[in-house]
Amino acid sequence: MHILVKERCFTQDISQKAVMIMSLIVQKFGGSSVRDVQRLRHVARRISDVYHQGNQVVVVVSAQGKTTDQLIGQAMEVTKTPSGREMDVLLSTGEQMSISLLAMALNQIGCPALSLTGWQVGIHTDAVHQNARILQVDTQRILQQLEKGNIVIVAGFQGVDEERNITTLGRGGSDTTAVALASALNADHCQIFTDVEGVYTADPRIVPEAVKLPEITYNDMLVMASMGAKVLHDRSVELAKEKQVHLEVLSSLTEAPGTLVWGVKDGPPSMQGITADRTVLRYHLTSISLEDASHFMTELYRRQVRPDLTEQPADNELLFTVSQHHRQTVEKTLKERNLWAEADERWAKVTVVGSQLHSIPHVKQEVLSELEEAGIPFGSSWLGERRCSVLLPRDAADEGVRALHRVLLRHRE
Amino acid sequence: MHILVKERCFTQDISQKAVMIMSLIVQKFGGSSVRDVQRLRHVARRISDVYHQGNQVVVVVSAQGKTTDQLIGQAMEVTKTPSGREMDVLLSTGEQMSISLLAMALNQIGCPALSLTGWQVGIHTDAVHQNARILQVDTQRILQQLEKGNIVIVAGFQGVDEERNITTLGRGGSDTTAVALASALNADHCQIFTDVEGVYTADPRIVPEAVKLPEITYNDMLVMASMGAKVLHDRSVELAKEKQVHLEVLSSLTEAPGTLVWGVKDGPPSMQGITADRTVLRYHLTSISLEDASHFMTELYRRQVRPDLTEQPADNELLFTVSQHHRQTVEKTLKERNLWAEADERWAKVTVVGSQLHSIPHVKQEVLSELEEAGIPFGSSWLGERRCSVLLPRDAADEGVRALHRVLLRHRE
Repeated sequence: MHILVKERCFTQDISQKAVMIMSLIVQKFGGSSVRDVQRLRHVARRISDVYHQGNQVVVVVSAQGKTTDQLIGQAMEVTKTPSGREMDVLLSTGEQMSISLLAMALNQIGCPALSLTGWQVGIHTDAVHQNARILQVDTQRILQQLEKGNIVIVAGFQGVDEERNITTLGRGGSDTTAVALASALNADHCQIFTDVEGVYTADPRIVPEAVKLPEITYNDMLVMASMGAKVLHDRSVELAKEKQVHLEVLSSLTEAPGTLVWGVKDGPPSMQGITADRTVLRYHLTSISLEDASHFMTELYRRQVRPDLTEQPADNELLFTVSQHHRQTVEKTLKERNLWAEADERWAKVTVVGSQLHSIPHVKQEVLSELEEAGIPFGSSWLGERRCSVLLPRDAADEGVRALHRVLLRHRE
Repeated sequence: MHILVKERCFTQDISQKAVMIMSLIVQKFGGSSVRDVQRLRHVARRISDVYHQGNQVVVVVSAQGKTTDQLIGQAMEVTKTPSGREMDVLLSTGEQMSISLLAMALNQIGCPALSLTGWQVGIHTDAVHQNARILQVDTQRILQQLEKGNIVIVAGFQGVDEERNITTLGRGGSDTTAVALASALNADHCQIFTDVEGVYTADPRIVPEAVKLPEITYNDMLVMASMGAKVLHDRSVELAKEKQVHLEVLSSLTEAPGTLVWGVKDGPPSMQGITADRTVLRYHLTSISLEDASHFMTELYRRQVRPDLTEQPADNELLFTVSQHHRQTVEKTLKERNLWAEADERWAKVTVVGSQLHSIPHVKQEVLSELEEAGIPFGSSWLGERRCSVLLPRDAADEGVRALHRVLLRHRE
């Protein structure tokens, strides 16, 4: 097994509660961890334990369970094209509900707790609604409350722009809130609680043999997250790397040790995990000149869209994939340039994530042979330093992940 | 019919849309007016009509339908004794949802609209959670948006205290928000839209012969509201009177002219309406000394509780009624003074509201005879300048309202 071996003692210390005494700890709980009253009470008890060990605790929560989806549904009933600003006003209520309910649950078991929304904390963002970036976090009010002995519950996913408009950080934004708070408060620990026990070599629901990673570097985690691993929001990993915040990913349901995300130096050539992105869209343009294709791609890059698995099967053809949430930008760009192609939703991208993959002999070949042997058809593929991705039919994605995981296990033996 | 006859021409003008051109209008829509997408669209169209006539429009909305009750239910699942501060964080999400959805519905039909929460407007209140009073309203952001041509949608019922905690104004608080905004903005009209067509001599669902009042004085409306008429929140009427804001109560569903609430001078002796308060609690103390009774009542007054229909049937007995929401204060005061009495929920208070009732000969006698004739038993009763109230069994309240309305009709003929 290729495991990164920097200061392993630190990883072990973290799971020993003795060293956590008198620390400032940021804990983030996702929507499924607080989805109903039972889960909320369970989370409150876990927070209470850490608090009663003498720690200062700042908790970041997401909206409960399916709340965000329900709110989006309500908006869609009213209009198919809601303004980003009003969506943010609407969606931010989800976290506002969960912070107050969690504060109540903590009070109920005798813990002093106080909830704060994004604007109450002072989580300042840019004005890009639905996908805002945190610019600055005020710490004064949180520190005041911590000094008073309160547990502070902060609404994840939301902030406020210069003009006091409510903004949201995009899907998974609560992870980013937690990292930004941990960095601004100079917290001793930043724990991301979720419904799995850490970062695995693959989704354990699909691959029962998947192995929990005791630790992973920011870079590997970043590629995992951007290639479809749902355990952490990619922007939160980026921020953690930038601010050198050590993240611990662990389960809100068990006491098992989780995965530590830290470390900037890459390890030896290794495979860390297999991911699947089932939300990619494939576009196939025909009758496009080489020049037009080049201008079109440049324009996409200019608009922050990164096409992947690009291929030119013939001089006048162009194939590429993008993330689903770039659909509008791609189609707008196509229209502006008098081009036409339909979004093809029948594909998935499976990826081997690792370090120095180029240095592992014949890695792409091995991946493709494994798929062939399993009888899985595949389209474009790409090998880079940190990943090897292959396009598969969406309904073969699980089978593809299992095939690639067999490759990974051979290399980790 | 005794009708107040000050500057009737003004009342008529208000229903002619021509004079509304280029006015600043505050419109408030209650929870039932926006309870689902259909109602929301309907309200958006009404607002759009007024906007397209060239008016500047500020809209105040309540939470949709049963949202507030659902949120209270969620809190009760977590704890029976939530802190007022956290309840306000939770409950204020109801209006935050409806402002964003209404702004979307307006955008959808081509009207530029922008939502603002209490803190975004700057609705500054004291720190009494769940029953806060508005201290000051900032107008800068609203005026800026109006000048840009936007319809401004403001969350009713909520504000923010000095320390940036969210506060709520108590049940019906959206009416108060509308009046406070109309006053601060020096609006030309303040329209309270509801699911009835105005202020009636009695609830038309109980008394089919009830008559819609074209206008009513602040004082009469205040007594109606505090005695159980649900059409307006009593604090909003108080504020309207103080700030001289003319209120128009009208239906969000029909185009019928409503009721104008204005005027401080009382008219001639008259009866204006019959109300029923089905939420009163009766307390009956036995074995209490005259001195203890007097100290107890003084203490209640000191705590802002106004006992009503007080009676001392014997030297050592005390009977009185209070509003349901004073239950906790009453029971705390009883306990502190080593007194004991159980809240009796089997009663309702029906009231004739009017002006100079003392000057109508034998009015109390007439009321009691009418009840007797209808075979309705009654308890304590009280006649003052502005009202004549009688305690009845709660299940006879509707019958009692009908009986008292017969008295009113005889006097209005």
